[in-house]
Amino acid sequence: MAVYTEVSDAALTDFLADYEIGGLLSYKGIAEGVENTNFFLHTTGGAYILTLYEKRVRAGDLPFFINLMEHLATRGLACPQPVRNRDGTALGTLCDRPAAIVSFLDGVSVKAPTAHHCAELGQALARLHAAGADFGMRRDNSLSVGAWRPLFDQAASQADVVSAGLAARTRDDLAWLEAAWPANLPGGVIHADLFTDNVFFIGDGLSGLIDFYFACTDAFAYDLAICLNAWCFSPDGTYHRDMGAALIAGYEAVRPLEPAEVEALPILCRGAALRFMLTRLVDWLNVPPGALVQPKDPREYDRRLTFHRQARDAAAYGWTR
Amino acid sequence: MAVYTEVSDAALTDFLADYEIGGLLSYKGIAEGVENTNFFLHTTGGAYILTLYEKRVRAGDLPFFINLMEHLATRGLACPQPVRNRDGTALGTLCDRPAAIVSFLDGVSVKAPTAHHCAELGQALARLHAAGADFGMRRDNSLSVGAWRPLFDQAASQADVVSAGLAARTRDDLAWLEAAWPANLPGGVIHADLFTDNVFFIGDGLSGLIDFYFACTDAFAYDLAICLNAWCFSPDGTYHRDMGAALIAGYEAVRPLEPAEVEALPILCRGAALRFMLTRLVDWLNVPPGALVQPKDPREYDRRLTFHRQARDAAAYGWTR
Repeated sequence: MAVYTEVSDAALTDFLADYEIGGLLSYKGIAEGVENTNFFLHTTGGAYILTLYEKRVRAGDLPFFINLMEHLATRGLACPQPVRNRDGTALGTLCDRPAAIVSFLDGVSVKAPTAHHCAELGQALARLHAAGADFGMRRDNSLSVGAWRPLFDQAASQADVVSAGLAARTRDDLAWLEAAWPANLPGGVIHADLFTDNVFFIGDGLSGLIDFYFACTDAFAYDLAICLNAWCFSPDGTYHRDMGAALIAGYEAVRPLEPAEVEALPILCRGAALRFMLTRLVDWLNVPPGALVQPKDPREYDRRLTFHRQARDAAAYGWTR
Repeated sequence: MAVYTEVSDAALTDFLADYEIGGLLSYKGIAEGVENTNFFLHTTGGAYILTLYEKRVRAGDLPFFINLMEHLATRGLACPQPVRNRDGTALGTLCDRPAAIVSFLDGVSVKAPTAHHCAELGQALARLHAAGADFGMRRDNSLSVGAWRPLFDQAASQADVVSAGLAARTRDDLAWLEAAWPANLPGGVIHADLFTDNVFFIGDGLSGLIDFYFACTDAFAYDLAICLNAWCFSPDGTYHRDMGAALIAGYEAVRPLEPAEVEALPILCRGAALRFMLTRLVDWLNVPPGALVQPKDPREYDRRLTFHRQARDAAAYGWTR
């Protein structure tokens, strides 16, 4: 949530000369996105977001993200649409960083979502999965089950400082999940980071999905499990079954889950919670001096894991036949 | 340049219910303004800036700033126009802070201004002074000559750590300026902080002036002296006489300087440089831990003072009869 790179009017004017979006009217650095520098950009052609990709995003992954947004937008999903320059490429260079211009999406992130918002989200998630079906590129999920033990190794010795007993709990979760993790579920493009910040509403209606920089190729139901974690819990770890039911029903209204996905749901939810607990834990223990970004609390996901460990089946999350 | 206060969608929706600017479409925290939190705000009624006034702005001064912007905008000056709510007030409360909505101005700040930009600025500055002539409120300049010695007292003991000999130079400047400072120059509303960040251009034309939170009642020519300092020097202290000449000529095309103002110009320029050197020096020596804002370098103004000390008359700045 910061502007890491200053862009001068002269540098931006040069950059825009390669695009056919009209003359520069205004640009403002905006506090959105943790990893990149984003500007609200207004030209005579319309409103856009200009993103400079900072070093935490691997440059080699950018064509996947940019092409995916273009693919999804072309198929009618409300997501940022990359703008190609005169050379036909949507990825340029500005201030020595990879940079892209995408269409500006109106909408507001909901801080305290209701079951209605969850139902809207479920439908949008299933539409995203459907729209990605014929996307030609592949990107493995670098934060799936195989990545969790190496993440834990970075944090294990200090985990109990953050929460008493966290190291032992995590060791048990890891062993259980590595054994139980399902293979061969239906899959394709998933968003993998559909937290409330990345979902826009206008009034009661969902207006768009943003921030595809964790998107990858993985099980569709894992994306649903990430959303159940991100949307249906209070910070104290209370699960709101009505919200989960609305999210799952919204999803199934567009794409019904297969029996194997329903069966795997508690495992996927527990795994998704562990994934966010671990990345948060590593960030929490490694805040760089002078950091502009407040790290998120890993204990919120430690508390969610308490729920997941006792959830026996998809019905515990609100799924009904 | 930071978002100090998070505003939830629910809090903002409540706040906007008191205004007649339509439904909320989007808002983004923007990295603009050092003292306050600013949001780009898009509603069905148009584009706005929402400002939350943080503690560095004295709440008692806000009616002066808000009423001044409204006064100037009503008189055709391109500056943010405050939006009054249903109660007729332009100053509300959001997240326990005074807050205002003003019209959004297109335009881009020029990092490396030319003589042309200076000429445009000079005209706009004179139009601002003219438009403020019948403004009914008064606010003393709390950062004029009487404030400089107390500022210096806060920093004197450490001044030489920042630049060798700075304490002695400042002591001499202070004594000289306190003796020479002119009284009874033509005056009224001045902006008092018209740095390049606060002046917008679209293409080659000046499109607006922003950030009136140092505006006060003082000598018009002192505002011109601030602009000469802010626009016509390189960081190494080189004065660009062609830019100064363009700025002064632009100003005089709208409002010719009186002989007393011409005579006082070198004193006012030296004073303006000392004022920014001193406030920067105090900020430089008092960076709070975890500061989100990089302090500006006081030595840039120490170097400008070297020029001002040897400038004999307004001609040294590019003024011609």
